[in-house]
Amino acid sequence: MIIPGKYLLFLGAARDPLDAKTAYGLVDWAPERCAGQWRLPDCGIDLGLPDLAFGQAHAAGAETLVIGITPFGGAIAPEWVAPIVAALEAGLNVASGMHARLESVPEIAEAARASGAALFNVRTPGTRYAVGSGRKRTGRRMLMVGTDCAVGKKYTALAIARDMSAAGLKATFRATGQTGILIAGQGVPIDAVVSDFVAGAAETLSPDNETDHWDVIEGQGSLFHPAYAGVALGLMHGSQPDAIILCHAAGRTHVDGYPDFALPDFAECIETNLGMARLTNPMVRCAGISINTRVLPAEARVAHLQAISDRFGLPCFDPVATGAGALVAHIAKTFD
Amino acid sequence: MIIPGKYLLFLGAARDPLDAKTAYGLVDWAPERCAGQWRLPDCGIDLGLPDLAFGQAHAAGAETLVIGITPFGGAIAPEWVAPIVAALEAGLNVASGMHARLESVPEIAEAARASGAALFNVRTPGTRYAVGSGRKRTGRRMLMVGTDCAVGKKYTALAIARDMSAAGLKATFRATGQTGILIAGQGVPIDAVVSDFVAGAAETLSPDNETDHWDVIEGQGSLFHPAYAGVALGLMHGSQPDAIILCHAAGRTHVDGYPDFALPDFAECIETNLGMARLTNPMVRCAGISINTRVLPAEARVAHLQAISDRFGLPCFDPVATGAGALVAHIAKTFD
Repeated sequence: MIIPGKYLLFLGAARDPLDAKTAYGLVDWAPERCAGQWRLPDCGIDLGLPDLAFGQAHAAGAETLVIGITPFGGAIAPEWVAPIVAALEAGLNVASGMHARLESVPEIAEAARASGAALFNVRTPGTRYAVGSGRKRTGRRMLMVGTDCAVGKKYTALAIARDMSAAGLKATFRATGQTGILIAGQGVPIDAVVSDFVAGAAETLSPDNETDHWDVIEGQGSLFHPAYAGVALGLMHGSQPDAIILCHAAGRTHVDGYPDFALPDFAECIETNLGMARLTNPMVRCAGISINTRVLPAEARVAHLQAISDRFGLPCFDPVATGAGALVAHIAKTFD
Repeated sequence: MIIPGKYLLFLGAARDPLDAKTAYGLVDWAPERCAGQWRLPDCGIDLGLPDLAFGQAHAAGAETLVIGITPFGGAIAPEWVAPIVAALEAGLNVASGMHARLESVPEIAEAARASGAALFNVRTPGTRYAVGSGRKRTGRRMLMVGTDCAVGKKYTALAIARDMSAAGLKATFRATGQTGILIAGQGVPIDAVVSDFVAGAAETLSPDNETDHWDVIEGQGSLFHPAYAGVALGLMHGSQPDAIILCHAAGRTHVDGYPDFALPDFAECIETNLGMARLTNPMVRCAGISINTRVLPAEARVAHLQAISDRFGLPCFDPVATGAGALVAHIAKTFD
């Protein structure tokens, strides 16, 4: 699944910025892909991008209208249909992370057929994958693993790939979830893959590469999550990581939404992840710890990160507050 | 997915008994569900069941024609279409474990619509599942775990459920693969479930039950399999087993089809499975070891099982050669 950019970001009539996480993620991490925004009259969000009509956007080089909002329930709202059809008629493709597939709306399916444009449903896999082979691939891989879901694995991977590239290292962000796929323009929606093929899909995501190239792979789920651990394990085995990065959100004590499940401590989480990862890469090690410190007072963050770094003898960073420079230096020094 | 029995077993023109594993599994484990067989003229297999025409079978109480053969590739052969249509016209449902869905053949889809009969594709899930909740359920659960795929997990679970019932214990076999589903008449094809929902599907498979009732759950994959470990982990977390049974095939040293992956030793395999299973059931223990001793000389089997039993202090049995009596006695004594 390779989504042509640039993008025109569709915001519909959204009023709550939390509903526009996809659009904000794109503006934060792929500003060069964002040509403009398109809003219904009562939209309450402004990304700071130019408001472009569909024809204008197409003329300005935009290739894909991206649904940048994910309202609760994941459905395609009735008032979106006419503008989506108009975008298709103007020559744009359309990409969506909704649960409902775009072509399930007959008007949209028909307009896409008529215009020849592509519809991308990034929440559902576009192809069938093979089962995992276990074959060792060339190049290096780094996988984000979490104490829980939604702790900052995507932001961590994006920050690492950005900061490695800035330091002159060869690095590619590999997306495994819908927002990540839209940011990268490609990827595998790993939790939507049939379970038999998850490891195989992960193998496809990070193919053979130059020996000094790093794939920096967005994680999914957590080995300690009662619903999603199998997804995390299949992704891990197919990724064959040389390095794992432990990701955590400061202040989180229980699995989000599962109050009966306490989070593991860092040492247990690292050991369990390494133990399972050794199946497909016996040389795997933990290279760093990423903490989302958003809930901490700004003046307490550096000391919090330093204390964890001292305890584990590993770089500890916040991808937003500090960036991943310490990790990149550690990688450059310890892998050669 | 609940498949009405009795069954008429369809053997097509199969000549190799290995292609008829599903039919033999049904005859071995669910003889009371098997009303008869149906064969094309050049079929080389005889299950020892009466050959019944479709009308005869229906009159004799058969409700479902079961495709009992799985030729390489999993496709529906052209010469099967006319008899399947005739079976539908005679009032039978049709169940298949083929990769291709029955309704993908237009003549079959049309005949099913006309007759009102049901088409069961046991390799693909019939319903959407919820994500796992992690909620503890009443009743007890025993999960088969393997050193590899295809080591005898299904036969082990079937033998345990049979021998527990014979001993007056409350036990239900819970099927997670296509042949198991046909034997039980219901179940969840766990490796065909989208990865996000595997644990949730496993929760559905073994619902709340009486406190002294055991669900004996067919395992899938192995935590040490480079392609299928994620499936095994999701099934494990949703199953919340009180007991695991380690299953192995004597003589197997490497993951079948993956010569670079040595099998774990039993102690490591038990410890890893228990470590991961504790997430959703901290009280889990290993209750026994099941060995498929088919490759051993008959006179060597008992000593082989005894040596393993002595080493681990657990009952060790072969579901075919010895039955699961030793395990059932151990369960009755150690769980109360």
